[in-house]
Order: sequence, then C-alpha cells, then structure tokens
Amino acid sequence: MAPSSRSDKRIPASPKKESDGFVRAIARGFSVVEALGQPPGRHTLSETAKSAGLTRATTRRMLATLVVMKYCETDGRYFQLRPRALGLGMSYLNALPFWTTSHRIVESLRDELSESCALAVLDEDDIVYVQRWPSRRILSTNLGVGSRLPAYVVSLGRALLAALPPDQLKDYLARADLKKLTPRTIDDPKKLRATLTQIAEQGYAWIDGELDPAICGMAVPVRNPQGQAIAAISVNTISGSITETAARRKFLRPLQRAAQDIRMQMPGN
Amino acid sequence: MAPSSRSDKRIPASPKKESDGFVRAIARGFSVVEALGQPPGRHTLSETAKSAGLTRATTRRMLATLVVMKYCETDGRYFQLRPRALGLGMSYLNALPFWTTSHRIVESLRDELSESCALAVLDEDDIVYVQRWPSRRILSTNLGVGSRLPAYVVSLGRALLAALPPDQLKDYLARADLKKLTPRTIDDPKKLRATLTQIAEQGYAWIDGELDPAICGMAVPVRNPQGQAIAAISVNTISGSITETAARRKFLRPLQRAAQDIRMQMPGN
Repeated sequence: MAPSSRSDKRIPASPKKESDGFVRAIARGFSVVEALGQPPGRHTLSETAKSAGLTRATTRRMLATLVVMKYCETDGRYFQLRPRALGLGMSYLNALPFWTTSHRIVESLRDELSESCALAVLDEDDIVYVQRWPSRRILSTNLGVGSRLPAYVVSLGRALLAALPPDQLKDYLARADLKKLTPRTIDDPKKLRATLTQIAEQGYAWIDGELDPAICGMAVPVRNPQGQAIAAISVNTISGSITETAARRKFLRPLQRAAQDIRMQMPGN
Repeated sequence: MAPSSRSDKRIPASPKKESDGFVRAIARGFSVVEALGQPPGRHTLSETAKSAGLTRATTRRMLATLVVMKYCETDGRYFQLRPRALGLGMSYLNALPFWTTSHRIVESLRDELSESCALAVLDEDDIVYVQRWPSRRILSTNLGVGSRLPAYVVSLGRALLAALPPDQLKDYLARADLKKLTPRTIDDPKKLRATLTQIAEQGYAWIDGELDPAICGMAVPVRNPQGQAIAAISVNTISGSITETAARRKFLRPLQRAAQDIRMQMPGN
C-alpha cells in the first residue's frame, strides 16, 4: 500500500472542514493527546492548550472527553495519559508483518555486533523507529520507538529512499527540505540523488557524521516476500571508530542476513 | 495521581453527550483507530464499521478524517494505520518515570534468570504490560506491550493489588469480576483478600496456573521514591518446573534488586 492515497475516489481526500464538525473535533482530540506527550509527563490545562494550539475552552472540553474515555486522568489540576493511549500505538506496530518476529533477530544482531541496532519504516519524508536496540555499553537509553528523523540524513532513511520507485523518489527530491545539519550533510538534491543511486547499486547505505558529527552507521532495506522495501535495519557506532571499508567487512553480511531472516518470517513465504 | 479523578470539580465528569458533538465525534474517532488495530492489519470500511460498532456512513467520515490527519492510509478499499498512530502510544510510555531507564534492567534480569520477565502497570482492574522480555528459548514472540490481563489472575496484578491503599482495595474487591479461568483460579473475593494480605506481608506474589495451567510466576512491586507502587516486575516460567520455595530462593532477590534499581533511576532520588 502506498503511503498516500491519491487513487482513492470513494473517500473524500479533503472533507469540508468548516461544515463537518467531526473533522475538527477529531483533529483536536488527537492534537490534545499528542500535546499531553510533549514533553512526556503531566500538564496543566494551560500548558496543554498552548502545546495543542487550541483555546483553553476547547482544550477543556477535549480533556474532559479524554478523561471520560479513559485515555487521560486528572487530579483536577494536572492531566496525564493513561495506559489506554498505549493501545492506539501498539495497534500500528502489531499490524506490521514483521513486528512479532523481528525482535529476536534485531536483538541477536546487536549482540553479535556489540553495537546499537535499529529497525525503521519510511513515513513520507521521515523515518520512524519501530525498534531500537542500544549497545550494551550504553547504560541508560531512550529507546525512542515512534520517534522520527528526516530520512535523508540517516542510513535507515537513505536505504529506504534508495529503494523508492523512480516517480516517488523524484517527488521526494522535488519537495524535500534538505538542511545542512553538520558540515558533512548532503543538502544538494542532485548530490543526494547520486548517492541514492549508488546505495541502490551497492545494496547498503553508509553515513558518517551527517546528522550528528559523532555517529556513523550502515543500513540495508528489509524486503517483504513480494520484494518491496518495507523497512530498513541499521547498525550505528561512533564516528571515527571504523572506516566504511571496515564497516562493510564487519557489518554488511550480518545486516543482510538479519534482513533476510526478517523477510523469511513474514506471512507469504 | 490516582487512576480515577473523583476529586476533580473543574472538569465535568460526564459531559452532556447528546448536545456535545465533540464528545461523540472524538469517541468515534478513537474507536475507529482501535478498530483498525483489531485484528492488526488492513481492514475494509465494512469491517471497520462492524468492529467499531458504528454505521458505515459514520465510519466513512471518521476514516476520511483519519486519512487527512495521516493516522491512516488507504488504497481505496483497505484502510490501515500509519506510523503517526504510534506516537500516540509512545507518548504514554515516555511519560512513565521509569520507561527510559528500565529496559536495560529488565533485560539483564531476563539474562540472569534465563526466564521471561515483564514490567506492568495497573489500570483499573487490569494490568497493562509496558515491557516484556521473553526467555531466549522462545524464538518468535509477541511482545505484547500494551496488552491487558485481569489483575487478579497474574502475579504482576496481585503484587499491584496487594499494594493498593485499603479503600481502593475494598472498592476493587466489591466490583471485581472474578472468574474461574482454570481449576486453580481464586474467584472468591474473601480468599483473594486473604491472599493479597499475605502478598503484602511477604513482599512478593506467586501464582501457579491460575490464568494458564502451564504458567507460574513471581512478581514484586516497583516503588517510586515516594514509596508508591507504580509498577510491578515479574518472572514467569513453566508450571511444575519449579516450586514456590525454590522460586523464592532463585527469583526473589534478583526481582527485588531490579525493582530497587528501577526505583533508584527515577527522578526524585
């Protein structure tokens, strides 16, 4: 299924927002849930309203609704999410055809390589982490499942962009907001296109210091039984600790094996 | 913060549902997101309507809204959740004061004991898993973060119920729907109360075959720096493979140490 639904004729792509109370109400309800998570923790009515970009009166009604629905709880002053909100996110993960089986595979890869490993999907111009396995050297970690990064600056994103059909890649390069995040970031669409072509040919993406000067990483696409790249798997380590040549020797085969193991576990094999 | 908000005077506990379009619209929006996750995967309009308990017309409007909001995508026939839905659930987890730091601790406990370990919170009468670390013997696993079980039949739930303030425990025992799920399930409120008193005294819960005849487990509460039991940590293994006495000798100290480690990592220490 394509990330967008341009071919959909039966479902209106853009409901009349002013006349359809549903649309605005639902949008606001979800905005309030998202606001309660940014930053994570408990929030006053005012904080939530500001974060959601809504009036206090509207936010108050939204919060009251969410309390009744048990997505949120309050002591009268502070509001915070309840475990039911978790179900909304887990529904997405549980629907991924590789979610159930890939944990053990990515965990084993991390143990084998002794470096941080991750699995992510592409969502428009971002990658979204669905698994993160920090290196055992790191004691306290924010696993960051659900967190986003711009696709063009991380190896996971490059591997996924390189696997896009030509028309989708063209659209991406035309609209993408490429910024120089470090002196090494590729922010020129032509140069990015050339890099993505190379990645598609060699079968892996290598990035060194383009998002964070201290981090380098390698990623390969994870394909479903039909051959579509539906995720990517990566290993990350400290920039300068390894060259691309050494990383290819050390990481590429294990990454490809993990991607293949995940593919073999998907329905349809 | 208490799981319910009976003391809240400023937020109406029960908005006028018929007159307030927001309430119904939001409730329906969330119902549709939940319906798209049950079972996980892609769903037609009809399936979604049936699962959400809504009319096709209402469901169609809800789905159109969710597509516009990028929580859901469609190819015109099937609908499925998008990664943005994941953010809703992760906001809850990221707000837990032990979420970031506890992974490594629970993973290490699993490695030390070579048995499945889990971390859960209490949400009314259920426990909700926030971490599950299956034993390495198990190759394919549904990690089940976000999944629920009745508190009275699992060791995690017993440990959390035993730590409730007396009035909340009394309310729970008065309302709880205790069913005999196996021949060994305690379904008598008086007997459950006596068991919970014993758990509070001995500092751990042990359950053998009350949810699933094949599973036994031990759990202890995880307390915050203020001493409140805000989660529980458990180890589970195959019923009959170990006695309670042997489990106490083998599991109790490591469980208590993990709970204490998690506590020490929380803000406020």
